[in-house]
Amino acid sequence: MNQPNWLDPDELRAWRTFVEATQLLFDRLDRQLQQDSGLSHADYELLVRLSEAADQRMRMSELAEQTLFSRSRLSHAIARIEQAGWVRREGCPSDKRGTFAVLTPEGRQVLEAAAPGHVAAVRHHLFDQLTPVQRRQLQQIANRIREQLGHP
Amino acid sequence: MNQPNWLDPDELRAWRTFVEATQLLFDRLDRQLQQDSGLSHADYELLVRLSEAADQRMRMSELAEQTLFSRSRLSHAIARIEQAGWVRREGCPSDKRGTFAVLTPEGRQVLEAAAPGHVAAVRHHLFDQLTPVQRRQLQQIANRIREQLGHP
Repeated sequence: MNQPNWLDPDELRAWRTFVEATQLLFDRLDRQLQQDSGLSHADYELLVRLSEAADQRMRMSELAEQTLFSRSRLSHAIARIEQAGWVRREGCPSDKRGTFAVLTPEGRQVLEAAAPGHVAAVRHHLFDQLTPVQRRQLQQIANRIREQLGHP
Repeated sequence: MNQPNWLDPDELRAWRTFVEATQLLFDRLDRQLQQDSGLSHADYELLVRLSEAADQRMRMSELAEQTLFSRSRLSHAIARIEQAGWVRREGCPSDKRGTFAVLTPEGRQVLEAAAPGHVAAVRHHLFDQLTPVQRRQLQQIANRIREQLGHP
């Protein structure tokens, strides 16, 4: 399958290494969170964003924008953590634009219990593996990719 | 929440940028494949590995090892593409160690039709965004992360 725009062997190797590294990393972080706190990495991200918001609440649309989750992925994820009692949804009578997600005290507790282990895992499996120069390189590369793909 | 091992603001920014960039990238590649070929990125990876194997077939355990999929994720994914007719599973009477996944001619066709668009998307959203130096940096960083996490 040789085509003008094909990946050359170096690019193919780089691409596979990248896919495998990110998959291993996110699988590992997911597993650590699941085992230690019963949270997926996506759940964790949502709880963090809510914990940083004023009054621990955000409009669903804003939460989708910040986390870059699609609307359907977000609804699905919020329904799951609502059932666990970590978030509740509230309609907004004065504003038809939508529903709020609110972090519950239980959700806050779960997040605070999960955070140290998660952060230690991110450090251990990512930052501690890289030199300071590589950390800056990764930030610049990620920035470039994110910029180009834009916020949907 | 200040703790000795917490991420500092630079690290937190780098981490979020990395999470967002990879999420945007894989979502975009997944969407392109789904829209153009009805394949997920995971489906695509599996078909590629089978297409590269001798006789277009691999033991499920070997496929799991190469793709780094967990056994349950792999079974689930193979069941889905088997239903589409792109792969069939075959038992191995002389060897109790397991089942083979075999790429069907239909699967091969779907893969060959999907490949140019997928490769163009990988180029466009990743390689074309980076300088040659950044490509090497990314390869080295990904290599380091993958090595440290090892093959499960």
